[in-house]
Amino acid sequence: MAFAMSTGADAQAVPLTAQDSDPNAMGWMQGFPPPPDKLITQPDSNYFSFPKLRWSVCHLREFLPTEEISRGLGAPVPLDYPTPAEFADLRSEIDNLTFMPVNGDQAMTWEESLYANYTDGMLIIHKGQVVYERYFGCLEESGKHAIMSMTKSITGLLGEILVQEGALDETLLVRDVIPEIGDSAFATATVREVMDMTTGVRYSEDYSDPNADIWLYSAAASPLPKPEGYEGPNGYWEYLQQVQPDGEHGISFHYKTINSDMLGWIISRVTGKAVTELASERLWTRMGAEQDAYQTVDGKGVPFAGGGVTAGLRDLGRLGLLMLNGGVINGERLFPAEVVESIAAGGDQSKFAGFPTIPNGSYTSQWWVFHNDHGAYAARGVHGQTIYVDPTAEMVLVRLASFPRAQNGFIDPTSLPAYQAVAEFLMARN
Amino acid sequence: MAFAMSTGADAQAVPLTAQDSDPNAMGWMQGFPPPPDKLITQPDSNYFSFPKLRWSVCHLREFLPTEEISRGLGAPVPLDYPTPAEFADLRSEIDNLTFMPVNGDQAMTWEESLYANYTDGMLIIHKGQVVYERYFGCLEESGKHAIMSMTKSITGLLGEILVQEGALDETLLVRDVIPEIGDSAFATATVREVMDMTTGVRYSEDYSDPNADIWLYSAAASPLPKPEGYEGPNGYWEYLQQVQPDGEHGISFHYKTINSDMLGWIISRVTGKAVTELASERLWTRMGAEQDAYQTVDGKGVPFAGGGVTAGLRDLGRLGLLMLNGGVINGERLFPAEVVESIAAGGDQSKFAGFPTIPNGSYTSQWWVFHNDHGAYAARGVHGQTIYVDPTAEMVLVRLASFPRAQNGFIDPTSLPAYQAVAEFLMARN
Repeated sequence: MAFAMSTGADAQAVPLTAQDSDPNAMGWMQGFPPPPDKLITQPDSNYFSFPKLRWSVCHLREFLPTEEISRGLGAPVPLDYPTPAEFADLRSEIDNLTFMPVNGDQAMTWEESLYANYTDGMLIIHKGQVVYERYFGCLEESGKHAIMSMTKSITGLLGEILVQEGALDETLLVRDVIPEIGDSAFATATVREVMDMTTGVRYSEDYSDPNADIWLYSAAASPLPKPEGYEGPNGYWEYLQQVQPDGEHGISFHYKTINSDMLGWIISRVTGKAVTELASERLWTRMGAEQDAYQTVDGKGVPFAGGGVTAGLRDLGRLGLLMLNGGVINGERLFPAEVVESIAAGGDQSKFAGFPTIPNGSYTSQWWVFHNDHGAYAARGVHGQTIYVDPTAEMVLVRLASFPRAQNGFIDPTSLPAYQAVAEFLMARN
Repeated sequence: MAFAMSTGADAQAVPLTAQDSDPNAMGWMQGFPPPPDKLITQPDSNYFSFPKLRWSVCHLREFLPTEEISRGLGAPVPLDYPTPAEFADLRSEIDNLTFMPVNGDQAMTWEESLYANYTDGMLIIHKGQVVYERYFGCLEESGKHAIMSMTKSITGLLGEILVQEGALDETLLVRDVIPEIGDSAFATATVREVMDMTTGVRYSEDYSDPNADIWLYSAAASPLPKPEGYEGPNGYWEYLQQVQPDGEHGISFHYKTINSDMLGWIISRVTGKAVTELASERLWTRMGAEQDAYQTVDGKGVPFAGGGVTAGLRDLGRLGLLMLNGGVINGERLFPAEVVESIAAGGDQSKFAGFPTIPNGSYTSQWWVFHNDHGAYAARGVHGQTIYVDPTAEMVLVRLASFPRAQNGFIDPTSLPAYQAVAEFLMARN
């Protein structure tokens, strides 16, 4: 695994199906000890490439140092469920829903889409009640799953909370918040430009180029001892101090993970807290979470604000409920309604381009906004993970997944229309 | 840190006091980023030496890969407390108790002993009620602390449960359970000899000898990439396969950590479960635990059964209650009463020698038995951690600590008589 972001570089041209790559069926890490060819280890094997990926997404802490996002010591607040009979009926109805994939010529059922997208967990909450919940592959209800770039949306939510509460001035330049950012290209960007990823900073994620910035970032971020003679930056924040410019700030949206870590640093500087601690204080200890989450860290203990979180499916559902209900969950307000209003309103669509599956979208505070009829917006991870909030349908959908390739462009065509179909089904139902 | 066991090798001749080495006072890892001289990192600094140790004992997962010992998804069962006024009175009374240290010539107060032993957390439960609870240094009620060799007692408890339930035959030879142990000195030891550490196996822990087995074990166990040209064993279990003999099995007790990992392997082979999974199933999910625990792993994901667990103070108190009450907690029986009877009865005292502070003791199923008037027994960690069970006083005492040197011989003189004093105080009280 790249410590900065999954690569999927080793994904096969024609990958195994979801069923054939099921980590239980493949026998990864079974037995004491497992057979040598079924071992997935950190030092010796490319543990975050498909199909090993399908096991490793549930086991990141077994490879990497991590920090806890504590749920605290209280009792969880259970989610609301229909009767078992109603729940079974709903599952059957939803599994058989059909939809037309983007640019497709053949309808697909909901259940087929789960396998097409290597789904590990799917949770749908409608009007406050869980209407659908299934686990696959490495995940189970008491398990946790890497959410990759959905982490950005947690970082962005914390940032937006600080902005709306007046603790963070989004018009400040980064250098005014963090003087030691020095001559980095980030220095002259505003906090808002960082939050919306409209900075003009160099950061290439061309995985086929060994000199791509992603690899330098990954080397800086690795908590393993640096190679002999290594003279590059050590840790996320040292990397950020030497980022080069690439165009002007504020002109257009460029999806670059370093913005999220820049925002993480800003948040920690302003609050005096690690993003893990803040996520615990503001979200996990107060939303009735049933599991701790955790976040990978670099060699200096800095959490990976751009992709390091692993969490439970239902707790991500609670996060979605918080968004859907404008900052309120279990009758308690955790942050101002304006936080969600600001995110749901979206960013500047004129600055957003290059995502064919999100033609009219925008990106703000590290959330993807679809600007569709339902006003939907989402947190999104590179292997198909999502929290998808549909305010019109009063629906929160969470998917955890381990799609072979780290690109939502391959996943969206059989996902986004499926989400729309299930939203319409639920709206028609009551 | 040695991955096999703390060394304390860098402890200073005259270490800082508990107050002066308080990690908050020393400023370790404060600030975003911390100043360079306050950073504690895995690759570059000796993070498990005093005084950094005093911070790191609460943060092991931030340095190392770990596996969760899950508490499950249910509600914790709170411990019972007196009224706040009674609780405050009790604290005052206990803090002012005096006792005579072993071989000492001057009485010491209970509270003085806490600082003398670099205590990070102290919990005392009497007749099912918490009568004393304090946190120091890096620990707080929602925090967790490395318990080091107390881990052995959890492994031993799981082993004893399997023995009493008939799932593990303690008279079997190791090679009958694990054929691939091969020509290791362990092959011809019985399971019981492994459990009681009366095997005749070579394992030196002379930290001043660079060829001591502890360093070889540590190198095998490290989850970091092996050094160039490394040809030694990879992981705990490969190490165990090549252990050399040292004397006969069954003759005398030798405190050697490799027995605990041998037992861990036996347990996993017999149950088909990692010790983390079994500890979760049999203990953590059923004792009303309020926090997950975790356990460090080697490069192949094998938990360190001899020292890898980190847990919360109160959950260790729950474990002590389970022992005190013969396998019952919160009205539920988790394992047969014979498990505790067997452990509390102790091992063969004639095989036990070399521990001046435990003159008549024994060791069985990885628990220390004092054979004193109160029938006390304990789990013990090398930096002063303990679960101390006193059946006569109906008392469970848990201490988490970060004593500068990794040797209980320095800690016991101001600890064991203090435990006895508080037990007598509680017995006299009601």
